[in-house]
Amino acid sequence: MSFELPPSLGVRGNEEVAKEIISRIWGKKGVFTCTVANTLTSTIPGISEAGDTPELTLFTPAADAELLVLGKVTCMKGIPINPGGIPTPATLTKAALELSKMPYFIINGGCKVVPNIPCIEVGGTYGEKVITGKAVSNVQKAYEYGKMLGEQMAQFYDYIVVSESCAGGTTTALAVLLAMGTIKENLVSSSSPKNPKQLKMDTVMKGLEAAGIGIGDLADDPLKAIECVGDPMMPVNIGIAVGAGLKVPVIFGGGSQMAPLMAAAIKLEPGIVGNIMQGTTRWLLSDPNSNMVKIMENISDRIPMVYINMDYSKSPYEGLQAYEWGFIKEGVGCGGSSVAAVIGSAGEIDCDKILDRVHEIYRKIMSLD
Amino acid sequence: MSFELPPSLGVRGNEEVAKEIISRIWGKKGVFTCTVANTLTSTIPGISEAGDTPELTLFTPAADAELLVLGKVTCMKGIPINPGGIPTPATLTKAALELSKMPYFIINGGCKVVPNIPCIEVGGTYGEKVITGKAVSNVQKAYEYGKMLGEQMAQFYDYIVVSESCAGGTTTALAVLLAMGTIKENLVSSSSPKNPKQLKMDTVMKGLEAAGIGIGDLADDPLKAIECVGDPMMPVNIGIAVGAGLKVPVIFGGGSQMAPLMAAAIKLEPGIVGNIMQGTTRWLLSDPNSNMVKIMENISDRIPMVYINMDYSKSPYEGLQAYEWGFIKEGVGCGGSSVAAVIGSAGEIDCDKILDRVHEIYRKIMSLD
Repeated sequence: MSFELPPSLGVRGNEEVAKEIISRIWGKKGVFTCTVANTLTSTIPGISEAGDTPELTLFTPAADAELLVLGKVTCMKGIPINPGGIPTPATLTKAALELSKMPYFIINGGCKVVPNIPCIEVGGTYGEKVITGKAVSNVQKAYEYGKMLGEQMAQFYDYIVVSESCAGGTTTALAVLLAMGTIKENLVSSSSPKNPKQLKMDTVMKGLEAAGIGIGDLADDPLKAIECVGDPMMPVNIGIAVGAGLKVPVIFGGGSQMAPLMAAAIKLEPGIVGNIMQGTTRWLLSDPNSNMVKIMENISDRIPMVYINMDYSKSPYEGLQAYEWGFIKEGVGCGGSSVAAVIGSAGEIDCDKILDRVHEIYRKIMSLD
Repeated sequence: MSFELPPSLGVRGNEEVAKEIISRIWGKKGVFTCTVANTLTSTIPGISEAGDTPELTLFTPAADAELLVLGKVTCMKGIPINPGGIPTPATLTKAALELSKMPYFIINGGCKVVPNIPCIEVGGTYGEKVITGKAVSNVQKAYEYGKMLGEQMAQFYDYIVVSESCAGGTTTALAVLLAMGTIKENLVSSSSPKNPKQLKMDTVMKGLEAAGIGIGDLADDPLKAIECVGDPMMPVNIGIAVGAGLKVPVIFGGGSQMAPLMAAAIKLEPGIVGNIMQGTTRWLLSDPNSNMVKIMENISDRIPMVYINMDYSKSPYEGLQAYEWGFIKEGVGCGGSSVAAVIGSAGEIDCDKILDRVHEIYRKIMSLD
């Protein structure tokens, strides 16, 4: 295949499939969706750093969505930050969306703190702690609604990006991957450079025990795995991929939270393999404390990981440099929207242009101008 | 101005403004929205024929939305029909959307019967009977959410079509137009060729009395007029027009139900005049029992009425021929979506192509194939 990727994009995994998919949608018109959801799992102390305190992690998804749509946050004071003041990756997502003028819509997967903006509703409610073993209700309905939405959007967009803002979501991702038997150890990422791997694993094992599930028991029933130990971001995004993936390419925009979605989607509709890929960041794939590549090896050798080559090391802002030190790495579809911006613009948008826009947005939301 | 309209489109009112707006969006990419809502006004016997019985009128908006998105109805048996079996104008809307591949989204303005599909939520609830004088709650929120949605969509679409499926909506339209003093007599349309004009006027006057409002008292407070005697389709669509109309053209897709929306929108944001137009049907404008042209003369001489020149007189199906006898005429944005299909395709889509597709859809949903 003669198609060459621009330097702003890189691939891990199956490069041939990546190039084949990207060549089909190069310069075409996609849509970006971000599903916001809460799982009370994020309020377990130590689990999530996607928020300044465990309590504030519940506000992060709504605040991220408001930031994308309104350019400001109305559900709380300030903007979503990690402890230490590192700003949400929505800064990067917003830059990519603004530059690409890609249509974007927020989906309410199920929130305790609902964003103060119009959202697409799918009948979801916020998730319980994973340790209950009864983490998500209304899974089937949210999945069916996602499927309808995927079928609908595939009628008029050339590709679809799904993504998430759901604090605590790497823990529920780990839980579902274990329940499905995709992995047997903790390989998922964290928004902190000090990934609390043991705490996450212990929490997840409590959830599996409460649900009476052993590792791999729900290999053939991913929706049941989500009901027991997942989060409400999952079913609708799986539905979108299943509903759209036979017709148009689907980009799973995110880090390890995308793994159970891809595993579940190809279990429910194997025919979408070859038409789906992950869209993520260099930061996520170079994280020494998680192993996305190894997770994906257990899912399929034909689902490539395409990443945006953003580099914040020369940024004048410490809050952005921190991404190079292992903070944040992914979230709010920042990788997927950036990858899509490059693809949709046929390479006219590149990492330099995105970085300039990130700096503008950063100055604005941090009130530095 | 040298721009000439194709024979599939016609104009009433200000032709210069119509051509100026259309020339700017000719061949460009718009989005179609349809706001579904219920007002219990439709259950007053004799008021609405948008449904086989007064009770079934409450199912019509949800069923219309399902028909557009799914190609079938799941909230009830059959499809929405007028007494006598005349099918919903969603048949025409669907034809226009399929041919144009225009992105479309359903907005839940406030339904008692909620469609079984993903909708954009704006915080609305179903409306009470207009005779209560307290017809709609949450008007300000739905308006603000509409405004956000309009601002959001104006970032990535070249123009926006707003529309409605809200049985009983010509009665609430009359009520709001009277409350604002736009008109002083009953000039609104009906989905029946036997427009129950006196019943509607009597019903509306009861509502105004219950609210303690005289004709024209709320000329400067359209949202208050809606709260008293409107329906939940209104505030979100007014918000979209106000939020988007300074940036991109807005097409009000519908019949006399669009009149109070346009009157309210230009009251709240006069700057959108010159960037908005009605998109409707020949049937609506040639109705002898209503007078859209006269209503518009009282709103602005710079908001043109652009209509699709559909003619069902040679259709082999009586259910469609009935449109030529004064049944239905408008609804579900059938005129606006058709006008937009012609504009978006730079005239490649015309009435003949739309008619062929309407026949295909008609045969399918009436199970004639």
